[in-house]
Amino acid sequence: MRFATAIAAQEFPAASPDSAERAIPAVRGEVEVRLAMRHAGQRLLRLRYELVGTAGTPVVLVAGGISAHRHIAANSGFGEKGWAEGLAGVGRALDPSRRRLLGVDFIGADGELDAPIDTTDQADAIAALLDALKIEQLHGFVGYSYGALVGQQLAVRHPQRLARLIAVSGAHRPHPYASAWRALQRRAVALGQLQCAETHGLALARQFAMLSYRTPEEFGERFDAAPEVVNGRVRVAAEDYLDAAGVQYVARTRVNAYLRLSESIDLHRVDPAAIGVPTLVVAVEGDRLVPLSDLVTLVEGLGPRGSLRVLRSPYGHDAFLKETDRIDAILANALRLPGETA
Amino acid sequence: MRFATAIAAQEFPAASPDSAERAIPAVRGEVEVRLAMRHAGQRLLRLRYELVGTAGTPVVLVAGGISAHRHIAANSGFGEKGWAEGLAGVGRALDPSRRRLLGVDFIGADGELDAPIDTTDQADAIAALLDALKIEQLHGFVGYSYGALVGQQLAVRHPQRLARLIAVSGAHRPHPYASAWRALQRRAVALGQLQCAETHGLALARQFAMLSYRTPEEFGERFDAAPEVVNGRVRVAAEDYLDAAGVQYVARTRVNAYLRLSESIDLHRVDPAAIGVPTLVVAVEGDRLVPLSDLVTLVEGLGPRGSLRVLRSPYGHDAFLKETDRIDAILANALRLPGETA
Repeated sequence: MRFATAIAAQEFPAASPDSAERAIPAVRGEVEVRLAMRHAGQRLLRLRYELVGTAGTPVVLVAGGISAHRHIAANSGFGEKGWAEGLAGVGRALDPSRRRLLGVDFIGADGELDAPIDTTDQADAIAALLDALKIEQLHGFVGYSYGALVGQQLAVRHPQRLARLIAVSGAHRPHPYASAWRALQRRAVALGQLQCAETHGLALARQFAMLSYRTPEEFGERFDAAPEVVNGRVRVAAEDYLDAAGVQYVARTRVNAYLRLSESIDLHRVDPAAIGVPTLVVAVEGDRLVPLSDLVTLVEGLGPRGSLRVLRSPYGHDAFLKETDRIDAILANALRLPGETA
Repeated sequence: MRFATAIAAQEFPAASPDSAERAIPAVRGEVEVRLAMRHAGQRLLRLRYELVGTAGTPVVLVAGGISAHRHIAANSGFGEKGWAEGLAGVGRALDPSRRRLLGVDFIGADGELDAPIDTTDQADAIAALLDALKIEQLHGFVGYSYGALVGQQLAVRHPQRLARLIAVSGAHRPHPYASAWRALQRRAVALGQLQCAETHGLALARQFAMLSYRTPEEFGERFDAAPEVVNGRVRVAAEDYLDAAGVQYVARTRVNAYLRLSESIDLHRVDPAAIGVPTLVVAVEGDRLVPLSDLVTLVEGLGPRGSLRVLRSPYGHDAFLKETDRIDAILANALRLPGETA
């Protein structure tokens, strides 16, 4: 049974590298696939990817949260900052001189697909992309947050496509409390859409999401100042930060992309016993979205294929974006080739 | 220095009691006061109260969260359910045959005062009310959540008016994370107002508030069902519950009352060392709004006047409404008269 078929592919090599040294190849491309979606029927979709690294080296797919995209980090071909800057680069576990790094835009991320998107759909799309790129097996799939859910589905549905999974801050199911939190964020967007304050609603949703990504410990440190009364209204210390977070998010996010990928987290369900590849689960104590107890359940269900690393961080669910040195050390160990030195 | 002056008082005894037995007196009344408000200047305000219990017995003021009001529990005069049903009644620590129970509507609760309201204002209003009722000293002030903050201010500004304070789930300052959460709730209301959907915004604010009042443990138990796709949208298991919570709240809450009392929590600041009366602090482990660590700081600041009781409850901040037997046992001990048996 094939859930997804690659139809056409196009590749766009990066412009000439800005370094005179031997450049690390970097390419962006698109693949058109026909996808049998779980809740949305047959769809023709465009998959966008970026592949950076020396030909012949092992391929590692790196997937992030619902706001992440195919550009993982600045590289010789595409110099702008990526979403995981600090996790990929020379000297890192994800070093493009020793690994090829594959980044993808999640389906739905362009905002053009207004239908329920399942994590199974993302996994099938990635399998089709690997077909098109003639990548038989990934050396590893590194998934953070939503990316971890997608990696789990790839390991259930296409286990031959990845040698190992590193799943950071993502469980086999959404926690019901976290689902309720996201459902209310989607309602904030809906409230904004009632007339024409769509971006206003999206900003508010993002601001509520920030509270779930971070921790009271961090807020206690950063925003302990007394509130002010401004124009007869109380304004608390964190509001400048939250305003900035809303503005920044709205500038780079299509409303439908947010809504459909947020829903997609809540649709996620995987039987841990069905994950067919060695899996390292990385948990953050104090993550308010993905409780440690759910990741312990996941690891127990994985049996001999599973292992667990627990970090303590004031950054909660966002620790993978902040504790880059500690994540890198974990990845270096998990992705090392036989005989390779640190 | 007087911050508040009672100007006129009116009393409305309850209609004839529905029991042939000697009824426990119950009265409702209003007092007009001139109040020098902290952020809003001089105001003429109407204070509404309910007083239930046998004349000559010690008076206990019971104050709840921002949604609470003067009607604590059903009684011989006013038969409808109160906000703390199960905490007051015959055989309880708050037994109206042995104590007079004083309940108040917070200033701002009628939605008519559209200005910043400080917890100092609430305390000054209560002192004026006690003047008007000729109650020299409360036997105790039992405050839950917002009520605990008001009790702290009364103990700072008018320590002679209360013999003891029992402060449940309320600290000397709002936690910055909780303030951020409330600020976003107020933004949900503002977004609704922008759209001529004021009650829609208020419902959403309440729904977000419910997440802060309860815990992931409770949601994990109650709402573990898989989501459904309804009309092309994902609907998670907790949404029926959240819908009901929103509808219920909107039916009984004026938007300004919600906004101004929510702000009032964020304006609250008390120096624990300035609290001039013996104070029992009751904390709930796992309260997501009022962390145990802040209540420990409060008790440390109280020095020899302070003591601490910690409860563990899956109901988090709402534990005082749910764990009524355990709260009652604490109150029985704290409010016992010399020589009185349990």
